[in-house]
Amino acid sequence: MKSYRKELFYKTKTRRAFINITRDVKKCLAESGVQEGLLLVNPMHITASVFINDDEPGLHHDYEKWLEQAAPHEPIEHYRHNDTGEDNADAHIKRQIMGREAVVAISGGRLDFGTWEQIFYGEFDGRRNKRVLVKIIGE
Amino acid sequence: MKSYRKELFYKTKTRRAFINITRDVKKCLAESGVQEGLLLVNPMHITASVFINDDEPGLHHDYEKWLEQAAPHEPIEHYRHNDTGEDNADAHIKRQIMGREAVVAISGGRLDFGTWEQIFYGEFDGRRNKRVLVKIIGE
Amino acid sequence: MKSYRKELFYKTKTRRAFINITRDVKKCLAESGVQEGLLLVNPMHITASVFINDDEPGLHHDYEKWLEQAAPHEPIEHYRHNDTGEDNADAHIKRQIMGREAVVAISGGRLDFGTWEQIFYGEFDGRRNKRVLVKIIGE
Repeated sequence: MKSYRKELFYKTKTRRAFINITRDVKKCLAESGVQEGLLLVNPMHITASVFINDDEPGLHHDYEKWLEQAAPHEPIEHYRHNDTGEDNADAHIKRQIMGREAVVAISGGRLDFGTWEQIFYGEFDGRRNKRVLVKIIGE
Repeated sequence: MKSYRKELFYKTKTRRAFINITRDVKKCLAESGVQEGLLLVNPMHITASVFINDDEPGLHHDYEKWLEQAAPHEPIEHYRHNDTGEDNADAHIKRQIMGREAVVAISGGRLDFGTWEQIFYGEFDGRRNKRVLVKIIGE
Repeated sequence: MKSYRKELFYKTKTRRAFINITRDVKKCLAESGVQEGLLLVNPMHITASVFINDDEPGLHHDYEKWLEQAAPHEPIEHYRHNDTGEDNADAHIKRQIMGREAVVAISGGRLDFGTWEQIFYGEFDGRRNKRVLVKIIGE
């Protein structure tokens, strides 16, 4: 069994953002040399998501609007977590809705994806350096 | 290490539907011959979910109602994604809430499930041919 | 390839609760002897979640409040699932929002976590004995 590990780094200029990381993950897969296996991608932070969906700016706008309506950033004092001095309680909720991780099949040395599947890093408390872990096991 | 891959095919008559695919996944597992390992099931589409829950029609009705309230299909023009000519922005949101994939333990050649765990394909933009990927690795 | 399986047991005193199970999962990892691989943790029940987030009581209060607002327990008769005699339809919805399982990378014999990542069992229909499955594969 082969195993591979890499950290990817992202820093968004805005509090919330969606970044297509598919190309970076594909580079990891090529480096790993794994032909058949499973690939795990997850943020190493708890106010961010890795998820698989469409690379369409209108949709990302809809996600942003929907999530902000579901769990608004303000008023800050609405959330007890923010009594600790944080202002990111909403980001912890948004991350749960969008999920933490993606697990992807590797077949024939490629991400085993349908036509429109793309991997995104979803940031909900950005403007800081963040890490995304890629772990691959297989043969 | 053994690895196995299969695509399952589903086409729903309605826009939204939940299909119990446990039997189909079990057939894959039997074909794979894997005794100990992990099994990944995911739609190869981005307006559908694979999830694990109860095979109870009342619950599926509740899911349908709750999701439609959380992210209504109409008005279509409420979503910027639909400016592209699509009408399925709500389906992309519903899929995020319900999740993309299920990862299941395989122990002793069986899906390592509790009493009530069943695998569902959740369709949110149906009436078209859709694919579900089953990937198994183990020994 | 090594594989390892263990069931953990939890019983909450309240209907809903979040339990930090990181220590228990780490014990499983140590027992398994796996150095490089993947670890799956999931409830064997369909009204509970395993998820990764922050061990901060204020945040857990916010999750509880937010989930209860999103899918209230009462009125019981609001949900068709509860016509079966159950009163836990809301718990099936809460579990979908929070997710079923966590998949964690194992690197150098350790859970490959960022600073604040902790594993939680999220109970939404407690006061009964419940099982959580830990499955590890790797080398």
